[in-house]
Amino acid sequence: MVGDRWSVLIIRELLLGQGRFQDLQAQTGATSQMLAARLKRLEADGLIERHAYSERPPRHEYRLTAKGRDLMPVILALRAWGEQWCKPEGEQPATHMFHRACDTELDLGGNCPTCRRPVAWTEMRAQPGEAWMTERRRRAANFIEQRRANPNLEVEPEP
Amino acid sequence: MVGDRWSVLIIRELLLGQGRFQDLQAQTGATSQMLAARLKRLEADGLIERHAYSERPPRHEYRLTAKGRDLMPVILALRAWGEQWCKPEGEQPATHMFHRACDTELDLGGNCPTCRRPVAWTEMRAQPGEAWMTERRRRAANFIEQRRANPNLEVEPEP
Repeated sequence: MVGDRWSVLIIRELLLGQGRFQDLQAQTGATSQMLAARLKRLEADGLIERHAYSERPPRHEYRLTAKGRDLMPVILALRAWGEQWCKPEGEQPATHMFHRACDTELDLGGNCPTCRRPVAWTEMRAQPGEAWMTERRRRAANFIEQRRANPNLEVEPEP
Repeated sequence: MVGDRWSVLIIRELLLGQGRFQDLQAQTGATSQMLAARLKRLEADGLIERHAYSERPPRHEYRLTAKGRDLMPVILALRAWGEQWCKPEGEQPATHMFHRACDTELDLGGNCPTCRRPVAWTEMRAQPGEAWMTERRRRAANFIEQRRANPNLEVEPEP
């Protein structure tokens, strides 16, 4: 159900609260057909729900269900692994995780240095770092640019 | 690097200490070509190492590197999620995890009921449950049967 590169990226975006079809397309880099197929599958598996936010044109927003949100520990474990093994030494994490209660940044293992204990993901707040925010803005701008250059590009296929 | 169904299954097998090409083939159900391609990729990414255990015929065993072993928390998080959301109520977990120090079975969140604390994965011991052991034996038997019925089937392609 989750052993697919695109599905993992989609779930990460939804955990960040980014749920509109076009935002998902811009940030994951998936084609609209690939994205639509993955969303359909995730919906059939009960991980996400679809909500219409516009009727003309028909536009949808996708939200995680409880089952989908519960994948957060998987994403956090993947993040900790990626930060440790796949990045140049000294580079900042793409996302910073904070303990809501005391606003302290957590370590990669999910421990709070202030409270000196592991923190459950439901007590965490995510904040993309400056470098990743810049990259995300660039992706959003590129996507708008591409659509302007190619207005016939189908943006959101009928689900 | 890990957003692929087969790669996740291969890593799970290697974490269980099952590293021979033919065992991986039998337990994952991948064709030899698919398996060989994934192993090559995992080796190039530094997650696994190849060791020859026979020269005639050439046969290899695959082992996780430190980088590969460090995916254990990801696999454990996926397992906890799968046990909670994807199984009929009351069904036993496929694998039981024990705290090495006190031999108590851990809960799905990795907490030891005896020591009343979360346990690091390096302090854990995995033990497939009876039902999964039976399934694994059946898969191994089926695989041997298939090879007997089709002796020309290429078993372990040259890496």
